[in-house]
Amino acid sequence: MDRYLNPLLTVISEIMPFSPSDPMKSRIERIFQQLDDEIDAVIFMNATEPNIDLSFFYVTGAESGIFEGCSAILWPDGSMELIVSELEETSSRKVDAEIKTFRSNEQRAEFLKESLKGVKMLGINGAALTYGNLKKLKEAVPDFTEVDVSKSVEMVRLIKDTEEVERIRKACRIASRVADDIPNFLKEGMRENEVGAEISYRIQRLGASGPSFDIIAAFGENSAEPHYLAGDRLLDRGEPALFDFGALYRKYCSDITRTFFAREVSERQERIYELVREANELALTKIRAGIPAKEVDAAARELIDSTEFKGRFIHSLGHGIGLSVHDGGSMSPVTDIMLKENMILTVEPGIYIPGFGGVRIEDDVRVTKEGCEVLTNASKELMVI
Amino acid sequence: MDRYLNPLLTVISEIMPFSPSDPMKSRIERIFQQLDDEIDAVIFMNATEPNIDLSFFYVTGAESGIFEGCSAILWPDGSMELIVSELEETSSRKVDAEIKTFRSNEQRAEFLKESLKGVKMLGINGAALTYGNLKKLKEAVPDFTEVDVSKSVEMVRLIKDTEEVERIRKACRIASRVADDIPNFLKEGMRENEVGAEISYRIQRLGASGPSFDIIAAFGENSAEPHYLAGDRLLDRGEPALFDFGALYRKYCSDITRTFFAREVSERQERIYELVREANELALTKIRAGIPAKEVDAAARELIDSTEFKGRFIHSLGHGIGLSVHDGGSMSPVTDIMLKENMILTVEPGIYIPGFGGVRIEDDVRVTKEGCEVLTNASKELMVI
Repeated sequence: MDRYLNPLLTVISEIMPFSPSDPMKSRIERIFQQLDDEIDAVIFMNATEPNIDLSFFYVTGAESGIFEGCSAILWPDGSMELIVSELEETSSRKVDAEIKTFRSNEQRAEFLKESLKGVKMLGINGAALTYGNLKKLKEAVPDFTEVDVSKSVEMVRLIKDTEEVERIRKACRIASRVADDIPNFLKEGMRENEVGAEISYRIQRLGASGPSFDIIAAFGENSAEPHYLAGDRLLDRGEPALFDFGALYRKYCSDITRTFFAREVSERQERIYELVREANELALTKIRAGIPAKEVDAAARELIDSTEFKGRFIHSLGHGIGLSVHDGGSMSPVTDIMLKENMILTVEPGIYIPGFGGVRIEDDVRVTKEGCEVLTNASKELMVI
Repeated sequence: MDRYLNPLLTVISEIMPFSPSDPMKSRIERIFQQLDDEIDAVIFMNATEPNIDLSFFYVTGAESGIFEGCSAILWPDGSMELIVSELEETSSRKVDAEIKTFRSNEQRAEFLKESLKGVKMLGINGAALTYGNLKKLKEAVPDFTEVDVSKSVEMVRLIKDTEEVERIRKACRIASRVADDIPNFLKEGMRENEVGAEISYRIQRLGASGPSFDIIAAFGENSAEPHYLAGDRLLDRGEPALFDFGALYRKYCSDITRTFFAREVSERQERIYELVREANELALTKIRAGIPAKEVDAAARELIDSTEFKGRFIHSLGHGIGLSVHDGGSMSPVTDIMLKENMILTVEPGIYIPGFGGVRIEDDVRVTKEGCEVLTNASKELMVI
């Protein structure tokens, strides 16, 4: 009600735009900043589940809808056109874009032709665009040359903006609370998929739309298989119980792993656990903006490889998370990126002994200028349940 | 212990092969039966989640593992080679195939080159192969011509074999039991995502690895948005509550929708409900092997379009289910396939009134010679909770 200008408010409004349409525009502009001037437009085109381009959701901000067969066309001025099926008309209304709704494949082709008229160089996302969709696009729009801009899109998506950080932070808080709760309900004799159900339930009760990927609940020797899911196996005394899961909160993922032991822990298991925890914590101290990602991986790997478990850490130290649980970017021996502020990555060393079992301890971190913000705050103490 | 041959057993073993490797071989052989002789090999190549080719899981039968960046190469004699990352080595051991494990992108390229040596015409799955993966393949293997075999793969996957039918049947039984249970726990004042959590929990407690897709729990006007997910909205008296979900059982999907009403139902809502149910049941009576899929869609659509709700059934009548919840094949006004025995499809008419709400009733059916087996047996009576 005060007609005098508040100088502080003016300053804040300059650096923090309040318009809900701006974050999306800024994402599109940042994509074009990475590209050569010759690119006239960029298209993200979805096929059928699961062959969906999550970059479509990055630029639209859509929180509901599947958008199979739908396309987003981005323009250098930060504006966007959507070509959506009738089925997604209601979902697409929440997006700030010019929207064309098709009722048939023929009409979709017409809209694509109309919208891309005059486009000579078209940026495509080679990481997700299917061969079939490119063929359809070429049939509909005769005169363009495609340029794979997937690396640029990946680079932009690697650096999270305020809205993304907030959503991932919340997804991490939910996953952490559930991880801390596991020792309260995990009991000898439970089945892997039974515990998976309990985890999934708690994730959703805390406000997530669901798990961010198929929950891994692996007992005994199954814990030695990094991408095992969950089966009928019962938890037996003296076995490791590894849980790798995340929450999906407003389309954004978290990803956490904790490993527990049933009733008792052997000396060898304890040695493995403490070594993995040490590798995890060592890696966390190495992370900060400006250092090569591979150096963080090397720190954790060298620690494990200096022991009798040399060669038993058989995957990358970490990967980016965001709209996808493997969201581009990694920390591995062959990663050539430098860490930058507001990258969000997992840190997940592990030791796997086929036939015996494995231990993995995984956190999610946001890279900062001075170090990192650990977004998953669940306990890492060795727990015998 | 009887050394005499049991004639009955001999006959059964001829028609029901017991070797676990045979069903996969038969799937590969059926794919090649659809193809021209000139195709030397077929490749299924995964990119990064979610851009995975489910056909990889169709031919390998792998029930665990994500297999990002991994490839399956199929040969006309029904044999298969897998090129997998070290991370998936344990998961891939359960597959009957020659397996090469790579430790770097360079090694992957070498293996691809080595395995595809001499291949002139290579079948690719254009529905799922990414532009980026084709580029990598062409860099690794210089001398092949790609042929998009996605239509043939889709056609083979449309007809389910015994193992697939069993898994989907079980997935449908689980989803039906949960659907029938909803009125026992759904209460006025619950949040959409809270009910979603209850559904997901029950699905997993019954032995599924998880929901087969993000659960749709839509109250009031949200039920008018076919691909709405679940939010914070509370269920209010007199509103529809629509639940669309499925179980994932050993990698196979079910997909069911039921719509309930909170405390009371208006005359208009009841009219909509009974009309949708009638359309669902009419469609079920039309299904049998040998009739065009579009005729089934037309029966349900004409019924709805003959009323004051003309044009409010805004999607296809149904779609194939299998490894994916949209597994190829459909029953829509533009579908040109004939129904065949052992196709498994959804039957899901709906009426959607923006701002008011929607009703959808969805079953899964297996097409038989004489009609269909309805795999989802949950009640369709109008239920006011």
